[in-house]
Amino acid sequence: MYNYKLTIQYDGGRYKGWQRLGDDENTIQGKLEKVISELVGEKTEITGCSRTDAGVHALSQVANFKTAKKLSESEIEDYMNKYLPQDISVIEVLSVPDHFHARYHAKSKTYLYRIWNKEYSNPFMRKYSMHVDKSIDVTVMRKASEHLIGEHDFTSFTNAKSKKKSMVREIYSIIISENSGFIDIRVNGDGFLYNMVRRIVGTLIEAGLGQLEVSEIPDILISKERGQAGGMADACGLFLEKIEY
Amino acid sequence: MYNYKLTIQYDGGRYKGWQRLGDDENTIQGKLEKVISELVGEKTEITGCSRTDAGVHALSQVANFKTAKKLSESEIEDYMNKYLPQDISVIEVLSVPDHFHARYHAKSKTYLYRIWNKEYSNPFMRKYSMHVDKSIDVTVMRKASEHLIGEHDFTSFTNAKSKKKSMVREIYSIIISENSGFIDIRVNGDGFLYNMVRRIVGTLIEAGLGQLEVSEIPDILISKERGQAGGMADACGLFLEKIEY
Repeated sequence: MYNYKLTIQYDGGRYKGWQRLGDDENTIQGKLEKVISELVGEKTEITGCSRTDAGVHALSQVANFKTAKKLSESEIEDYMNKYLPQDISVIEVLSVPDHFHARYHAKSKTYLYRIWNKEYSNPFMRKYSMHVDKSIDVTVMRKASEHLIGEHDFTSFTNAKSKKKSMVREIYSIIISENSGFIDIRVNGDGFLYNMVRRIVGTLIEAGLGQLEVSEIPDILISKERGQAGGMADACGLFLEKIEY
Repeated sequence: MYNYKLTIQYDGGRYKGWQRLGDDENTIQGKLEKVISELVGEKTEITGCSRTDAGVHALSQVANFKTAKKLSESEIEDYMNKYLPQDISVIEVLSVPDHFHARYHAKSKTYLYRIWNKEYSNPFMRKYSMHVDKSIDVTVMRKASEHLIGEHDFTSFTNAKSKKKSMVREIYSIIISENSGFIDIRVNGDGFLYNMVRRIVGTLIEAGLGQLEVSEIPDILISKERGQAGGMADACGLFLEKIEY
């Protein structure tokens, strides 16, 4: 069997998220598998690194698939980009050793969350950012973010229902930058729970708007209660930006 | 009467262009007039500087309207941004002297045309650029553009039907820059004929792809025949970027 690693970009706006749901094609995984299966001539499954939610975008998602058919990297890339919809692109194809697994071998992931923080909406970025029309204090946001760095039980910051799996994750860094009306929040960590980045961002926004005290954040973490953290930021502002192996 | 100057941004993707067609609201002018008329309490017309085509965007369009109602600049801006659709934004309102006219007083206009020049499509910019998947030689494009600088009869580069009006326009500069997969073409001039920028860009693309010789361009200008210039670049790559007064 040959093993191929794909680096993929997509606008998640019109999809139900990464993960294929049965035979429903309206997912990123479903769209990719359809084209790959046509290329190799048999039903083929792909493994994605991150199961991005409905409406969430990727600047760089990684996936892999195995096939008995030997193909060149450029053959795969050209074929896929020819038949994929315009909101999904394959930007790199690499032939990788048989043991490579897109999910298990990822060491860290970076998500970018983009906020448009002006009174008026941004006509061009309205589908790629969350519009917050009240002025956000970025200094307060940064202070709030410091409490989340490190290894914590993030139960308060997830909407996951399972109680069996570990809710402990490590956040390596949260970097917040401002650039002509945008506030970009980059969260790098070893992995993220369901909706975790969006609830972290929602919490930081509430802190930056003065709706939540920075000093409350350690208690929110300790409480391990789903309802405790701030609201959930919109899906359209979230981008899977980078995966490190 | 009070005279107000508006600076407006819009994503032209779902509109029939700037100019209102009768009572049809699906134009930028129509959307703006509807909101302004509600604000001032009577039917009010606005004058736009450039009549951008269907699907063409604006980073900075200028318009003005007159009203007997005295309003503060921020009142107008807040009201309009509250009631306009999210793909149209008012980014500045200025109270101006009675004689100011958004179209007659413009000294120069800059249009930006954005090309995405990679084999794969760009999921995020697919509605804000033209995708050309064959490699364009930008050096050749620049050489071709030099022939268009200055005062010329641009009949060959317009789809306008009127033969009464002057087809002479002056192009002050064409600046072409490359930036991570994009080719940006900025055309600055005293005014532009119907479809002129898109036909100039179409011609430059054909030159850059080797489908047209740079040396043919002076003859195309001299011919003054509509069919002579290159094809028309897609509307979605074109932005009205700046108007100088």
